[in-house]
Amino acid sequence: MAAEGSKPVRIGLLGHGTVGGAFAELVEARADAVEAATGRRPEISGVLTRSEGDFGEILERSDLIVELIGGTDPARQYAIDAIRAGRPLVTANKQLLAQHGDELFGVAREAGVQLRFEAAIAGVIPIVRAIQESFGVTEISKVFGIVNGTTNFILSEMAATGAAYGEALERAQGLGYAEADPGDDVNGADAAAKMAILARLAFHTPVSLDQVPYEGIESIQPDDISYAKELGLSLKLLGVAERRDGGVSVRVFPCFLYPGHPLAPIAGPFNAVMVEAPEITEVTMSGPGAGGLQTASAVLGDVVSIIAGEVPVHETRERLPMVADVSSSFYLYLEVADRPGVLAAVATILGDHGISVKSVVQRGIGDDARLVMVVHECMESSFAAAVEALASHEDMREAPRAIRVIEEQF
Amino acid sequence: MAAEGSKPVRIGLLGHGTVGGAFAELVEARADAVEAATGRRPEISGVLTRSEGDFGEILERSDLIVELIGGTDPARQYAIDAIRAGRPLVTANKQLLAQHGDELFGVAREAGVQLRFEAAIAGVIPIVRAIQESFGVTEISKVFGIVNGTTNFILSEMAATGAAYGEALERAQGLGYAEADPGDDVNGADAAAKMAILARLAFHTPVSLDQVPYEGIESIQPDDISYAKELGLSLKLLGVAERRDGGVSVRVFPCFLYPGHPLAPIAGPFNAVMVEAPEITEVTMSGPGAGGLQTASAVLGDVVSIIAGEVPVHETRERLPMVADVSSSFYLYLEVADRPGVLAAVATILGDHGISVKSVVQRGIGDDARLVMVVHECMESSFAAAVEALASHEDMREAPRAIRVIEEQF
Repeated sequence: MAAEGSKPVRIGLLGHGTVGGAFAELVEARADAVEAATGRRPEISGVLTRSEGDFGEILERSDLIVELIGGTDPARQYAIDAIRAGRPLVTANKQLLAQHGDELFGVAREAGVQLRFEAAIAGVIPIVRAIQESFGVTEISKVFGIVNGTTNFILSEMAATGAAYGEALERAQGLGYAEADPGDDVNGADAAAKMAILARLAFHTPVSLDQVPYEGIESIQPDDISYAKELGLSLKLLGVAERRDGGVSVRVFPCFLYPGHPLAPIAGPFNAVMVEAPEITEVTMSGPGAGGLQTASAVLGDVVSIIAGEVPVHETRERLPMVADVSSSFYLYLEVADRPGVLAAVATILGDHGISVKSVVQRGIGDDARLVMVVHECMESSFAAAVEALASHEDMREAPRAIRVIEEQF
Repeated sequence: MAAEGSKPVRIGLLGHGTVGGAFAELVEARADAVEAATGRRPEISGVLTRSEGDFGEILERSDLIVELIGGTDPARQYAIDAIRAGRPLVTANKQLLAQHGDELFGVAREAGVQLRFEAAIAGVIPIVRAIQESFGVTEISKVFGIVNGTTNFILSEMAATGAAYGEALERAQGLGYAEADPGDDVNGADAAAKMAILARLAFHTPVSLDQVPYEGIESIQPDDISYAKELGLSLKLLGVAERRDGGVSVRVFPCFLYPGHPLAPIAGPFNAVMVEAPEITEVTMSGPGAGGLQTASAVLGDVVSIIAGEVPVHETRERLPMVADVSSSFYLYLEVADRPGVLAAVATILGDHGISVKSVVQRGIGDDARLVMVVHECMESSFAAAVEALASHEDMREAPRAIRVIEEQF
């Protein structure tokens, strides 16, 4: 599409809910960046909502269509019409692809038109692009992971607080992580639709939603979670698509994981997907599973790829200065003489340089003592000056040792 | 490139070491898959080694060039000549891009030729594609992570075993995770080169290797690791590229992380990279950092993207059967009468169905007892039959509850 020079790219937007609204704003906010990256400026040429706009007219004055209505009717017909009219289609609609994938991909192939849908699975995690492009000719043996953020939040909450399922669901609804009617999320149907799409992409074989058996988390007891904790296990709702016995198995079910499993630490409303193949071993990708802005960002990524055509050669359009002195938190190890007032002397030197101590451990060994501490974030130049002052203090037995610390707690 | 129909794509291969050899084999093994995905079959049209082959002749009879020589001389000149001759270039050469990025990207832009380099950073983790394509117009605020597998293995080994740096390095060398001369890995220079490239891509600003201050892990004491463990910290060699104070800061340094940080569990020779931006929150990608086959696989992914041009519409070229009955491991929760022989009765029923118990916890409560167990992998149909038999046993107080377990320990 890049070849058409400097004419704006006209985007027809179907749907103006949470994601649609965020997408329209993001297109405006990133129009300069899109133009810098692709040579063409994007603009929303029409918006179809339940009450306003005419699909035919919007199609007529658009170069590509973004479908964010959800559901299959009328989204399916709009998608087919758009593609048949030669308009590349970007959609975040997992139901559309899981139920009508054969038809849609067939129409797109026939028309020679791009169909992109990164936002349909695992939000901003670029798993569709990775499987279709990076691992497009890789013999993938298994794709699995946590593809529903609502259930992962509920299970994390049950494990952390001992809450019952209903109570955890209410908290999820209060925080906006679960809808008023959470049916398809908590019964596993949403995850099943995503796994049907991932299985299709990974194994190049038709998989539709009705071929994916699924179980949800509604009947999980807090007891099960707490007993399993004693065995070192944590509970996730997993989607699994794998080659088995010459065929393919695609399923969704609640499942315990041992600690150390790459998916075990994924908590809260996050998603994570693992891809396994002999030639890549395993690759894990995690990030927020949903959210209006995050989903809109994934949609925009697809739109930019369509506008750009082949990936553009990297261009440095900024001239940002390199910043030398930054702030960091530090671990500091000091061997000092073990006599009264040493800790006070050290603390004074640190304080004089504007550095405050977060935690400290002191150990005596004979006449010497070890002071091991973590200090709060400070300018690195101040810290270096403090360490220099410490090094020349009469009570210091060895050169101080310092290592940075990421203070951020997750 | 896809437009040229069914002629084979001729790949000129520069370098035939570990990665080059693996790449040549992979091209042959995946030729059918590449043809199915892109319509064109790849073939190696010439191989340049230190002792054999002529660059000019190979260039002449190639449609694209894969550079796997490493170093900057003669790789830089070959790369420039290939691009100027209109041949798309795929390289795994981080030094080339970190030291001569401005020149190479400039030549590629001028020639309108693709330059891809996924394998140069973090092995098979598709971080370059994610930043350039998925997040191409995203306002990235920070890219950071573990981009050197050798040092991550050494630090993991020191933490797990209390080994000194030299000892852990020897183990890494014995396992092939460190080279005989590990200089650029352990002193941070390798990670600095990768961070210079990532910073350039993320912030669209020129960053070269000499602007990236780096520290290595050679002077890390086992003491520091064990003291920090008491504070709950784990040590990683981090590369950080971030926007700060209107500019950019790019650095490499050993650094402690608190538990719960997404990078804290990354152990052994793995890499992991996080991307942060307001509109995506954070995305984390992890996987093996190197290895001949893994790197070759990343190179092939780039080659396929060049051949395919625009991403092809998904096609189901397989017709794989859906497998219904698979094997799983299970957690099983039973409320039973607390009398002698109950556990034996349960174990007998399980044994009769070919199911063996991995671990079991028994708790008495009044006249009842809870049996909580994990059973080894078995066919799901056998397990369902065993649960049915258990449910109808006279000592059962409640319906049995079962949840799957991923038995694999990482």
